[in-house]
Amino acid sequence: MSDKLKEACGVFGVYNSEEDSSIGRTIFYGLYALQHRGQESAGIAVTSGEGINYHKEMGLVSEVFNDEILDRLTGRIGIGHVRYSTTEANTLINAQPLVVRYKQGFLAVAHNGNLVNASEIRSELEESGAVFQTEIDSEVMAFLIAKEHSGDIEKAVEICMEKIKGSYALVMMTEDALIGMRDPQGIRPLCLGKQNGSYILASESCALDTIDAEFIRDIEPGEIVIINKDGLKSIKKNRNNCRSSLCIFEFVYFARPDSTIDGSNVHMARWEAGRLLAKEHSVEADMVIGVPDSGTVSAMGYAEASGIPFGIGLIKNRYVGRTFIKANQSSRAIGVKIKLNAVKEVVQGKRLIMVDDSIVRGTTSGLIVNVLREAGAKEIHVRVSSPPVMHSCYFGIDTSTRKELIGAQRKIEEIRQHIGAESLGYLSLDGLIKATGLSRERFCSGCFSGTYPLAVPREGKRYVFEKR
Amino acid sequence: MSDKLKEACGVFGVYNSEEDSSIGRTIFYGLYALQHRGQESAGIAVTSGEGINYHKEMGLVSEVFNDEILDRLTGRIGIGHVRYSTTEANTLINAQPLVVRYKQGFLAVAHNGNLVNASEIRSELEESGAVFQTEIDSEVMAFLIAKEHSGDIEKAVEICMEKIKGSYALVMMTEDALIGMRDPQGIRPLCLGKQNGSYILASESCALDTIDAEFIRDIEPGEIVIINKDGLKSIKKNRNNCRSSLCIFEFVYFARPDSTIDGSNVHMARWEAGRLLAKEHSVEADMVIGVPDSGTVSAMGYAEASGIPFGIGLIKNRYVGRTFIKANQSSRAIGVKIKLNAVKEVVQGKRLIMVDDSIVRGTTSGLIVNVLREAGAKEIHVRVSSPPVMHSCYFGIDTSTRKELIGAQRKIEEIRQHIGAESLGYLSLDGLIKATGLSRERFCSGCFSGTYPLAVPREGKRYVFEKR
Amino acid sequence: MSDKLKEACGVFGVYNSEEDSSIGRTIFYGLYALQHRGQESAGIAVTSGEGINYHKEMGLVSEVFNDEILDRLTGRIGIGHVRYSTTEANTLINAQPLVVRYKQGFLAVAHNGNLVNASEIRSELEESGAVFQTEIDSEVMAFLIAKEHSGDIEKAVEICMEKIKGSYALVMMTEDALIGMRDPQGIRPLCLGKQNGSYILASESCALDTIDAEFIRDIEPGEIVIINKDGLKSIKKNRNNCRSSLCIFEFVYFARPDSTIDGSNVHMARWEAGRLLAKEHSVEADMVIGVPDSGTVSAMGYAEASGIPFGIGLIKNRYVGRTFIKANQSSRAIGVKIKLNAVKEVVQGKRLIMVDDSIVRGTTSGLIVNVLREAGAKEIHVRVSSPPVMHSCYFGIDTSTRKELIGAQRKIEEIRQHIGAESLGYLSLDGLIKATGLSRERFCSGCFSGTYPLAVPREGKRYVFEKR
Amino acid sequence: MSDKLKEACGVFGVYNSEEDSSIGRTIFYGLYALQHRGQESAGIAVTSGEGINYHKEMGLVSEVFNDEILDRLTGRIGIGHVRYSTTEANTLINAQPLVVRYKQGFLAVAHNGNLVNASEIRSELEESGAVFQTEIDSEVMAFLIAKEHSGDIEKAVEICMEKIKGSYALVMMTEDALIGMRDPQGIRPLCLGKQNGSYILASESCALDTIDAEFIRDIEPGEIVIINKDGLKSIKKNRNNCRSSLCIFEFVYFARPDSTIDGSNVHMARWEAGRLLAKEHSVEADMVIGVPDSGTVSAMGYAEASGIPFGIGLIKNRYVGRTFIKANQSSRAIGVKIKLNAVKEVVQGKRLIMVDDSIVRGTTSGLIVNVLREAGAKEIHVRVSSPPVMHSCYFGIDTSTRKELIGAQRKIEEIRQHIGAESLGYLSLDGLIKATGLSRERFCSGCFSGTYPLAVPREGKRYVFEKR
Repeated sequence: MSDKLKEACGVFGVYNSEEDSSIGRTIFYGLYALQHRGQESAGIAVTSGEGINYHKEMGLVSEVFNDEILDRLTGRIGIGHVRYSTTEANTLINAQPLVVRYKQGFLAVAHNGNLVNASEIRSELEESGAVFQTEIDSEVMAFLIAKEHSGDIEKAVEICMEKIKGSYALVMMTEDALIGMRDPQGIRPLCLGKQNGSYILASESCALDTIDAEFIRDIEPGEIVIINKDGLKSIKKNRNNCRSSLCIFEFVYFARPDSTIDGSNVHMARWEAGRLLAKEHSVEADMVIGVPDSGTVSAMGYAEASGIPFGIGLIKNRYVGRTFIKANQSSRAIGVKIKLNAVKEVVQGKRLIMVDDSIVRGTTSGLIVNVLREAGAKEIHVRVSSPPVMHSCYFGIDTSTRKELIGAQRKIEEIRQHIGAESLGYLSLDGLIKATGLSRERFCSGCFSGTYPLAVPREGKRYVFEKR
Repeated sequence: MSDKLKEACGVFGVYNSEEDSSIGRTIFYGLYALQHRGQESAGIAVTSGEGINYHKEMGLVSEVFNDEILDRLTGRIGIGHVRYSTTEANTLINAQPLVVRYKQGFLAVAHNGNLVNASEIRSELEESGAVFQTEIDSEVMAFLIAKEHSGDIEKAVEICMEKIKGSYALVMMTEDALIGMRDPQGIRPLCLGKQNGSYILASESCALDTIDAEFIRDIEPGEIVIINKDGLKSIKKNRNNCRSSLCIFEFVYFARPDSTIDGSNVHMARWEAGRLLAKEHSVEADMVIGVPDSGTVSAMGYAEASGIPFGIGLIKNRYVGRTFIKANQSSRAIGVKIKLNAVKEVVQGKRLIMVDDSIVRGTTSGLIVNVLREAGAKEIHVRVSSPPVMHSCYFGIDTSTRKELIGAQRKIEEIRQHIGAESLGYLSLDGLIKATGLSRERFCSGCFSGTYPLAVPREGKRYVFEKR
Repeated sequence: MSDKLKEACGVFGVYNSEEDSSIGRTIFYGLYALQHRGQESAGIAVTSGEGINYHKEMGLVSEVFNDEILDRLTGRIGIGHVRYSTTEANTLINAQPLVVRYKQGFLAVAHNGNLVNASEIRSELEESGAVFQTEIDSEVMAFLIAKEHSGDIEKAVEICMEKIKGSYALVMMTEDALIGMRDPQGIRPLCLGKQNGSYILASESCALDTIDAEFIRDIEPGEIVIINKDGLKSIKKNRNNCRSSLCIFEFVYFARPDSTIDGSNVHMARWEAGRLLAKEHSVEADMVIGVPDSGTVSAMGYAEASGIPFGIGLIKNRYVGRTFIKANQSSRAIGVKIKLNAVKEVVQGKRLIMVDDSIVRGTTSGLIVNVLREAGAKEIHVRVSSPPVMHSCYFGIDTSTRKELIGAQRKIEEIRQHIGAESLGYLSLDGLIKATGLSRERFCSGCFSGTYPLAVPREGKRYVFEKR
Repeated sequence: MSDKLKEACGVFGVYNSEEDSSIGRTIFYGLYALQHRGQESAGIAVTSGEGINYHKEMGLVSEVFNDEILDRLTGRIGIGHVRYSTTEANTLINAQPLVVRYKQGFLAVAHNGNLVNASEIRSELEESGAVFQTEIDSEVMAFLIAKEHSGDIEKAVEICMEKIKGSYALVMMTEDALIGMRDPQGIRPLCLGKQNGSYILASESCALDTIDAEFIRDIEPGEIVIINKDGLKSIKKNRNNCRSSLCIFEFVYFARPDSTIDGSNVHMARWEAGRLLAKEHSVEADMVIGVPDSGTVSAMGYAEASGIPFGIGLIKNRYVGRTFIKANQSSRAIGVKIKLNAVKEVVQGKRLIMVDDSIVRGTTSGLIVNVLREAGAKEIHVRVSSPPVMHSCYFGIDTSTRKELIGAQRKIEEIRQHIGAESLGYLSLDGLIKATGLSRERFCSGCFSGTYPLAVPREGKRYVFEKR
């Protein structure tokens, strides 16, 4: 229904030196702030040093938890997770955090990302006797650590990191430590904060703000942090092999604009992307509008750089939820009109520049152009503040197969005709990177360029657990 | 939790000349577009000319209906309702549309507004033998019409209108007609549209857009429209007593910006209000920001008129729902931070003008000022695009009692201190009215001025049905 | 699925002279004991003398109420209701007690039975201006009383009783009185009890036992009892027109065996019916078994009278619920086997007498005979402890139409062949009546005899409220 | 609330040689028949030879499944499980069947019983690298089999059986086989049936009857059956170490009366227990009554043997559910009266013999005696058709700790006084065994005698997974 890529997960962790009856609430608020990273299931696990107490269920954070449940989730250390998944059946079994018991005690794992060699490791582990109960990468990592853990968790985590390939921003909890890990490419974001002496790990800095924690720094690519009674210890083993390849789509669409990732603020990057888009694809027009919510900021940047006034030409219905009602036969366009409506008084008779953050399958852009046309817009020039999405992602984003990506299947002029715009312009990859203020080498832009920071499988073979 | 006034209801009606299997869906989409007018219960009633079929329940439109239910709601004529209410117990009994059977057949009634003489009429009707089962005004109106209806529905509706006092935008359905009524003061909005030969009535024009219907005109103050097999008949009996007193708060906060009410577009009025606010309360500053979502448009207008750049300094969490979790002890401010976060990179070191649409109880403005201050803002000048709310509303808005209205209890300088801003300025009533482009006489601005278009009760005595 | 007639309702009422915080629980327990009389909705209404507080919902008593709800239901006077209904749509609107407000205050009404002139009275009331919102008889009675009540509730209730025809065991509550009424034929049961100075009204005496109340007496046919601060007042206006016509099916199937109705214990009557059945339809056999649960007692009576040993040949699954799963294609008989299984060790090689309480549509008897046959029974002689059901009921029982009643459509020999039994014998009506120990004139046995205690409509025309 | 021991689980399995779209329904009906063995969660897993499809949830069988879910559960092989557990938190994770993937493919396991060396095996497995995710024994067994399985499932199952100690009636499914196992003591029942060429495994024979399957035989103590495309293969390795020690409580209370276990019908055994009880503890009286439902059959046997007439003195409310409402202060006895009521007409003035199947904690017997006393019983002689429960069970039954067992804490005369009976008699263990018709050596009667068929842990140490 929506023409957006989908982020897979958000993670959050807390380490207190003393028992904290409100640790469940702290994690709850953190997950609330990360809700945009996953809306299918949510979970929290806590420990007071002996056993692990947890609750996870399908649904939004606000649906999964209530006061009664949060009151039970007390402890010293805790982690939380929000998840989006493409699997349909029995999904609760795949919800996170994953909690396991092994020879050294308990382990709870919450993961954002995607391992590209998970199947291989599973096979190896199976060969050596492992028995799996879920389909999630957290299980692979928990098993690796359990296997290698003979007293020294640090060592076990290091060995785990050596074996796994792919993207992972991970928070993990033993009975006495909170552990954070970011893959050597730093594909998924993970940052560190402090709140009254407690350490916090979070996918995005906006979650730190929500709980009034202070942002300390990003976890570095390939870094492991172990937080326990001795304080925080940072481990960076193969510094030479670590090269930041942050997912550039975090700046395009995924991350919350109030987050700052690896030193670059998301909102500022989007604004700047709009400015650069204006320079790359200028056009004579009366007004710049954004496709709410994600296109608005770049539209403002475009307006600023072009000198063409910004206007609010499209209004989004704030109550559009997850319920899906079959469309009325009488009107094919109703689907998009439930969500977006034009402000006639603003757009009629105008030559518009309509800015969106990305076009993935190209299913809705044409409908929106049509809504504006019906409302009286004279010309509609579509501008996209990122390049065409042309390749699949193997690192935790639900891109469609290449066949569904309109950028992979059609030329830009064909896309323009498809959506019925007077003109169409995409921001160049150089422009997008420049907007972030970071260097090109810092990013994975595989979905735009087809060049990935590490070898990817030929086809996205999934680890099959259940028949479907 | 939120410092906003609350609208009470939204209404919607459809008249087809032939049986329509998708009439339930049409009404569903209409209510979806009006969801902002009431989030507590939703209902749809339809008829094919014999008996009435309906479904109503507590919850959002998307929660109350599903495909199975909508498939059953087929017919020629139908009405729908969304509701917000302050009553807690047994609220389903008070959900609308109200469906009754009387000597002439069936009647379904959906009402937005508040009758000021409902208690008196109930007493009179009780004297003549009426038996009531709910607390809602729809029941009063249904009973009046039933009482007067001896064959001529037109006459009955007219007599009803003569008796009732207060605000009402009403849609009503008999087995062969759709009826719309707007009170002689036109306090609540109601408009007429057409979609492929079907007539539509809706609280706001945005609902017409959503279903691809054409806007025809607003129902006039004191007008009755009866739509049946003979077409649409408009009745305006006491034209002399009708004087538009449209609720000005529809422009301030209630209505969706893409709606046009009585000829004035809501979005344009809010933008203009911002422009006029800039003129009334100019101040030297580096940036204008809005409190999302409702303060954003006026902030843009302010920026345009003042020449000070507009920026996005506050980000709203899109997933804040209706679940209420008790606050974490460790931080009083978390309540507001769950909803709003500052973009540090945007606001730090800046002298800000923060524009909001209204201040009612004054509970959150101070917290937001603080969020900005913590994010590094140097100065925060609060500007409100409407006057101080100083008086109760008797016409369908959930204003607090005067005791709770900060505008009624404190002087502006005291409010400024209370919220901790460098300066505070409210748009004048003249300014607000001017922004709408309509004349002063057209509005009820009782909540600002204390002057009401018709006599109001001394105190807001409620019709008590149940002990609570 | 089940081949049993269905009772429509159970009622319960309490009058305390002082406020009682546990009155909700007392009514809850009373309804729990009456649950067999209606499993579709349940409701409780209470008053402390000012307004009425109530809760009603679809579901079993244990599903509708919880501690939180019961804690709110405090007061001096209260009534409760359990209901079975045949209407599908919007049934909550038809749940009881019905609570209304009229010129004299509030009224809550809970009814068991069926008025045969409800449509006529509704028409009359509609003529005089009444507006109806439900389809239930309680509404008719509430409206009649409201209409006639001009200060003297006693008078109003009397007039109501004069107008209505049909069956009614009614409990009603005003803000200061608990009122009970039983129709002049006393078709439905209603009894009076006392518990620590509180008066109790209940459909059956088992509800008094459950709350440790003392049974005082049955309410007499045509009697009104008004319980208020002056104590209990009994009114019997037209003593001459009152003639007990108690529904004999209460003894056959509806009532709980631990109840005593109009002086006759239900369990004892069923046992005796079995004894008389043995005399009327003796047969040589090895064992008498009952169809659980309702046929068991009569089977024991049959065994005692015949000298043939009683055995448990059929076991009922205690967990068969209301969920309906479509049957497995592979076996048509599974439907009955889910509920009933034979004990092979008991029945094999035996000549059995299988006793059931009634045969209505004849859908399951054949299946049960088959289960026994497969388990090795040599002969199966079916005995029914009541006569063939041949006529519809108009007084509150959900009999099928005559077309569906196997007793109305087929001769006994045909029925025997249909169910595949070696022999079939029904208890005579004389026998059934004799078993109760009461005189023939005391009963309505319309479903067996076609003779009703008062005129019945030609066909069971329903008051149509909604299209379905 | 109830004074009964609780069975832990029921298992069911089906092997078809061809794909069967109704296999889910067959298992559903089987579980329905076994519902009395576990009411907390239910699950079904099926396979068509590739991957495993499953659904499990908290609740009764009828609540967990619906037509939509069952339609998806198609395949050739399938197993099902119903469970009762004492753990409160996160119980879904512990629901069965447990489905795992390991080097050889998939495994689904459903278990009834309790391993006494589960903790030891878990520790061993953990030492060799196993990672656990649940607290259930099924996980231990699945892991053992996975560990030993290198191509020959038969061998792996045998090794598993050698390692585990305790009680287990197990059904297991690989992608091409259905496997059944019963522990060498045969403590929990398991039987084999056939239905149109399909093999069935079930905890009790009543489940075979429900689906119209033919009973073939009981699985023998220590037997493994492997059913695959080559037919059924039975393995009995250590025949010498296998000695039947069937749980005698299956005959006292757990099993459904229509089941036949190891050659003895449960109903017949209970009847005979009553007969022997009459001989062991005769007393002069007027009537024998049973405590429904479980005491009824033995009461009938007692009546038959003693010549004292049987009567129905207590009626059970069929609608008592799982909802718990706090008791009314006014009456302590209401708890039991909600469930059981005396039939005054039957018991008053009588000297009664009241037969129950067992007394565990002694919480309700006294209340029932009181109910009978209040109803007018002159004397109440309590007879129990099993010996005093004096010892804990370690094989899958939820016995209380010894401290709570009234039989362990008080002498019989003290118990008599405690419950307020005129006399009290328990059936001897010899009598109970004799009633089953099987030899003493065939049974585990540890809860009565303290002698167990294999070494038991000193105290019931639980495998701790979560802190609670």
